[in-house]
Amino acid sequence: MSLCRKVLAHHGFSDEQAGALAGTLVAAQLDASHSHGIYRLLGIIDTVRKGGAVADAAPEVADVAPGVVRVDAKGGFSPCAFELGLPHLVAKARDAGIALMAINHCVHTTALWVELERLTEQGLVGIACNPTQAYVAPHGGKQPLLGTNPIAFGWPHPGDAPFIFDFATSAIARGDIELYRREGRAIPEAWGVDRHGAPCSDPAEVLDHGAMTPFGEHKGSALAIMIELMAGPLIGDLLSIESSEHDEGRRGLPYHGELIIAIDPSRLTGEASSAHMERSGRLFEAILGQGARLPSQRRYRERTRSLEHGAEVPLALVNDIEALLD
Amino acid sequence: MSLCRKVLAHHGFSDEQAGALAGTLVAAQLDASHSHGIYRLLGIIDTVRKGGAVADAAPEVADVAPGVVRVDAKGGFSPCAFELGLPHLVAKARDAGIALMAINHCVHTTALWVELERLTEQGLVGIACNPTQAYVAPHGGKQPLLGTNPIAFGWPHPGDAPFIFDFATSAIARGDIELYRREGRAIPEAWGVDRHGAPCSDPAEVLDHGAMTPFGEHKGSALAIMIELMAGPLIGDLLSIESSEHDEGRRGLPYHGELIIAIDPSRLTGEASSAHMERSGRLFEAILGQGARLPSQRRYRERTRSLEHGAEVPLALVNDIEALLD
Repeated sequence: MSLCRKVLAHHGFSDEQAGALAGTLVAAQLDASHSHGIYRLLGIIDTVRKGGAVADAAPEVADVAPGVVRVDAKGGFSPCAFELGLPHLVAKARDAGIALMAINHCVHTTALWVELERLTEQGLVGIACNPTQAYVAPHGGKQPLLGTNPIAFGWPHPGDAPFIFDFATSAIARGDIELYRREGRAIPEAWGVDRHGAPCSDPAEVLDHGAMTPFGEHKGSALAIMIELMAGPLIGDLLSIESSEHDEGRRGLPYHGELIIAIDPSRLTGEASSAHMERSGRLFEAILGQGARLPSQRRYRERTRSLEHGAEVPLALVNDIEALLD
Repeated sequence: MSLCRKVLAHHGFSDEQAGALAGTLVAAQLDASHSHGIYRLLGIIDTVRKGGAVADAAPEVADVAPGVVRVDAKGGFSPCAFELGLPHLVAKARDAGIALMAINHCVHTTALWVELERLTEQGLVGIACNPTQAYVAPHGGKQPLLGTNPIAFGWPHPGDAPFIFDFATSAIARGDIELYRREGRAIPEAWGVDRHGAPCSDPAEVLDHGAMTPFGEHKGSALAIMIELMAGPLIGDLLSIESSEHDEGRRGLPYHGELIIAIDPSRLTGEASSAHMERSGRLFEAILGQGARLPSQRRYRERTRSLEHGAEVPLALVNDIEALLD
C-alpha cells in the first residue's frame, strides 16, 4: 500500500486519487487477482505518461435526479470517482429503493467486485458494468466491435460473506490470449475468430486480424451489447469502439463510463427483508452441496490466506514497480 | 384474439385478466413465437383447472417507495398485473430517473419482450427477469436447482424499432429437450447432465434424473443465480426450487415473481439524451454489417409478415383450443 501510494505520488497523483486507486489495487491483490492487483500499476503509470489519464483529476458529483447521481471523473481513474459518488448513491437507494450512479469520463480499473463490496457492506444489492475497447466480435461476426464488457453483481447475505460475481462477457480475458501468444501456444478455438470469422486457434491472428469471441454464443453477445448501451450512450459516454478511437493507438487503459445500480431490499419488503434475504442461503448451500462452484468463494479463501500470511507479489514485479520511482 | 378471449371467459377469467392475457399471447403469435403464442392457452387452462392459478384474480398495486411499485397478482397471470403496474412504473422512472416494479404471486407467461416493448414505446430502457422452476443444475453440479430464468433487455432506438433481446439462461428451452424425447433423438451433450453430473445426450435421463445446464458455463450459471435472487428473495418472492415445491406435482405453469427495472434516458443526460441514444445505431449497423445477427430482427420480420398475411396457426392447435370451449 505505501509503495503504491509512493509511486502514485511520484507521478503527480493527488492524495484522493492515490488513496482510492491504491486501495482498489491492494484489495484486488489480497484476493489474488494478479491482473487487477498492483501489477496494474505499470499500466496506470504508462497511461498517465502517454497523456491518457489525468493523475490529479478532481471528480465532480452532480445530483441529476432523485434516483440518479452522475460523477464526472474528469479523465482521472475510476476508484476516486466511485468513492466520491458512493455516499450519494447509497443515500438515494435508501430513499427511493433503487438508484443509479453514472461515472463518466474515467480511465477504468475494472475491479468491479471491489466496488460492489462497498454496496453489500451497506446491505444493498448492486450491479455494475462498463464497456472497454473494441476487442470482441458479436456472435456470428468477425470484426472487433464490442468490449470485454465486465458485469458484476453483489448480494448481501445476512450473517455471512456477500455473494459477488464479476466476469468479462468475452469468452476469456484478453491478457490470457496474449499469454498464449508469448508462450507460442495454440488457444482453444472457442476464444476467437480469424479475419474471416472462422474459429481460430492462432492467438496472433485473433489479436491482430480477427477478434475475440463473447462467452455463451448469441446470449453472451446480447449481454455484451446491453452493457455497451447501458454503460455507454445511456449515461452519455462512449461505446467500446469509440473508446478505441479515443485511445488513438496509445494502447493505454480504456477511457469510458461505468454504470452502477443499487437496490435497498428493506425498501422493497420492509421488515420482512432480512428473512427474505436469508432464504438465499438455501440456494448457496444447495450449489455447494452438489459440488458446484459458488462465485466469490475462491476470492474469500485467497483473502483469508493473504491476511494471514501476507499477499504474494513476484519479486520481479516489485522491482518493476520500484523502477517507476526513478 | 376473439377465440382466445372466448376460451378465457368460458373458464372464468375476468375481462381484465382475459384482455391482458390474450393481448400477450396474440403479440407472441404475431412474432412467430409458437411456444409463447396461443399454444400456451392449453397450459394456461390446464393450470387453472388444476387449481394452480386464479382466473379472476384482482391484482393490487402498492406504492412502496419513490422508486418502487409492487403489484400483488393474487395468484393470477402476469400480464394483467403488469398492465396495472405499468403506469406507476413509467411515472416513477420519469420522476426519479430509475424505478423498479416487483410483480408478486403471479403465474407467469414469460413473454418478457412483449412487456419491454411497452417500456421502449415510452422512450424507457428496461430490464426484466424472473425465476421459473428448478430444472437447471448450476455449472459443475448435477441436481436441478435453478430455473430456466429468462432475462430481457429493451432499448428505445430513436426513429427505428427498439433493440430487444429475451433469452433463457438455460442452454436451451425445456420444451426443445422434450421435443427430442418425443422424437427419440439424442440431444447435444451441452444441453444437460445425467444423474452423476456428466454431459448427457439422452433427453429422458436429463429430464427425469439429471438436469438441464445453464448457457455459457460458469458465467451463465452466475447470471441464472442473480436472476433467482433479484426476482426472488429481493422482491419477497419464491426461488425456482420453492416454486417447484409450491407446484406440488401439478406440473402447472410456474408461480413466482418478476422484476422489471425502467430507466429514463432523459433524466440521465437531459436534452442530449436523444443524440446519445442515436449513437447506438452505429453499433447496430456494425453488427449487421459484419454479417452477425442482431437480436429482435427475426421477430420484426415475422411480425411484418404476420400483419401482412395473417399469423400462422396449425389447424390441430385451433381444434385443441376450440375443444377448450366444451
